[in-house]
Amino acid sequence: MRGEQRDTARAPARGHTGAVNLVTLADITAAADRIAGHAVRTPLVPAPWADRPLWIKPESLQPVGAFKIRGAYNAVASIEPGRRERGVVAYSSGNHAQAVAYAAKAFGVPAWIVVPHDTPAVKVEATRSYGAEVVLVGTGERESKAYEIVERQDATLVPPFDDPHVIAGQGTIGLEIVADLPEVDLVLLPVSGGGLIAGVAAAVKALRPQAQVWAVEPELAADTAASLARGELVSWPVEDRNRTIADGLRSQPSPLTFAHQRALVDGIVTVSEDEIRSAVAVLARRAHLVAEPSGAVTTAAVLHHADELPAGRTVAVLSGGNIDPDVLAELLRV
Amino acid sequence: MRGEQRDTARAPARGHTGAVNLVTLADITAAADRIAGHAVRTPLVPAPWADRPLWIKPESLQPVGAFKIRGAYNAVASIEPGRRERGVVAYSSGNHAQAVAYAAKAFGVPAWIVVPHDTPAVKVEATRSYGAEVVLVGTGERESKAYEIVERQDATLVPPFDDPHVIAGQGTIGLEIVADLPEVDLVLLPVSGGGLIAGVAAAVKALRPQAQVWAVEPELAADTAASLARGELVSWPVEDRNRTIADGLRSQPSPLTFAHQRALVDGIVTVSEDEIRSAVAVLARRAHLVAEPSGAVTTAAVLHHADELPAGRTVAVLSGGNIDPDVLAELLRV
Repeated sequence: MRGEQRDTARAPARGHTGAVNLVTLADITAAADRIAGHAVRTPLVPAPWADRPLWIKPESLQPVGAFKIRGAYNAVASIEPGRRERGVVAYSSGNHAQAVAYAAKAFGVPAWIVVPHDTPAVKVEATRSYGAEVVLVGTGERESKAYEIVERQDATLVPPFDDPHVIAGQGTIGLEIVADLPEVDLVLLPVSGGGLIAGVAAAVKALRPQAQVWAVEPELAADTAASLARGELVSWPVEDRNRTIADGLRSQPSPLTFAHQRALVDGIVTVSEDEIRSAVAVLARRAHLVAEPSGAVTTAAVLHHADELPAGRTVAVLSGGNIDPDVLAELLRV
Repeated sequence: MRGEQRDTARAPARGHTGAVNLVTLADITAAADRIAGHAVRTPLVPAPWADRPLWIKPESLQPVGAFKIRGAYNAVASIEPGRRERGVVAYSSGNHAQAVAYAAKAFGVPAWIVVPHDTPAVKVEATRSYGAEVVLVGTGERESKAYEIVERQDATLVPPFDDPHVIAGQGTIGLEIVADLPEVDLVLLPVSGGGLIAGVAAAVKALRPQAQVWAVEPELAADTAASLARGELVSWPVEDRNRTIADGLRSQPSPLTFAHQRALVDGIVTVSEDEIRSAVAVLARRAHLVAEPSGAVTTAAVLHHADELPAGRTVAVLSGGNIDPDVLAELLRV
């Protein structure tokens, strides 16, 4: 699919769109204060091997190997302490699970993590290593099981993306990008549930309105591209979305994250499975960064869809690094 | 070999040892100003998978994939401009070569880089990609060839380690470590020519005298361990040093860098080839960082020689990431 530039002049004004309140710069700045010292302040890594001025922001270097620690930590930190001690619950394709487990451990409270049975073993083991109880279920049963535990334990659900505190936490990436590269022209982000791009777009557009924020999605899970083209949420069958190697990008936006996208995101490109695989290898070879396929889609967009993107100083957010070592070894040999 | 703790109380005072002037904190602070915006301000990456509080400082994220950009850039920036425009010359096992080429390109001056013919292809290609002329020679002929070019072109030699500007540039890593982790107890650095540990030790000991600075060396190229034990430079045959997979650690200290080590370094441990290989895999799997074998020796020391090291908050400097992708793939599969 070709990149689609959206006419942001017609998008609703920031701060409120219909009945949905968007996350504000103040929310994101407050999140930055909460997570300081708990999330890594990742640098912008210059990528002189690209055909444009490019920097990679390696969220793979976070303690849980993914940006998810920012949102999860901010959400757990925002729960009223008396309630927080009864524990937290999460359902997730993997990285959010680890992040909630990590944050729960930091606060010394119990965590129940519901993950699909086909989650890579490396992610399940990592989640357990943070002291969480891992509950394996079928992909379609994650939410119902999570709510069942919430009810039984009187615990608090930390949603993977459909939550203002989670979105604000992810938005701290945007603060850092603009601080490190004040003249940034383009920020590229993977999109799945949409919490990452919602928060980062809110921060970037507030601080540097002339910068563009674009989404990148696997062709095989391009529900967001379809939704943005139609102007309303379009659902793809989970069996279709599960085809992509980018196992962190198989979710769909919620009304809350989609409202942020409609208001703040300038365009979207989709990338093929081969392009994703190739980008994982390029990131290891040239940037010395281990990316999971979901984290490599932004680099794939720069390498293979440059003509669909606006020109200029570009930041590609590498969202996570939790790849199976055997898969990485295989991709390095191609 | 067991780790050897040196009695620093008997070492000469900082600032001067015999006839050799040591690099000062002021030299290093000046270098930090020169390289700002040209070297990446690398973060400390928490390593919760270790048995001690550990952070990795990933110098693999520098533009040339190694810390060498710091010293090379500072040295090239310090040449008088009229002289600098006639060009710069370097001899190096690889990463310093790329760094000098990169710095020369940044200043728009020619660069001649003399490297041994067995340098990994990935490093030779990278050096050429910065516009430098690469001269391939036998390992023992590097210095003589470099001086021949200096004479012919009236250019300036940028030594890989035996130079106060190079040492001061590498020392900026020490400033960053103490700024990010003011209560650091132990800093681990690979040692070869010794420029890295000289500069970092000078910075760390000036800012936090109670922190210990330890060297790590491959067993197969343990000339520095032998030199520190004897209190004078001990030379190992180049054929012996060339046995280690850590191709960036096959050089030996100069009188200048050894004087820094005698004055400032608290101890040294050596690591086996298997420990180095294993550490490369652990860094990719758990820290999502691509390390070259030379860069992984500090992690190998933490993983396999913890009982020989002082306890406490530890920073392992990962010096570079320029590993052959096939070698990385092989190590990931073990």
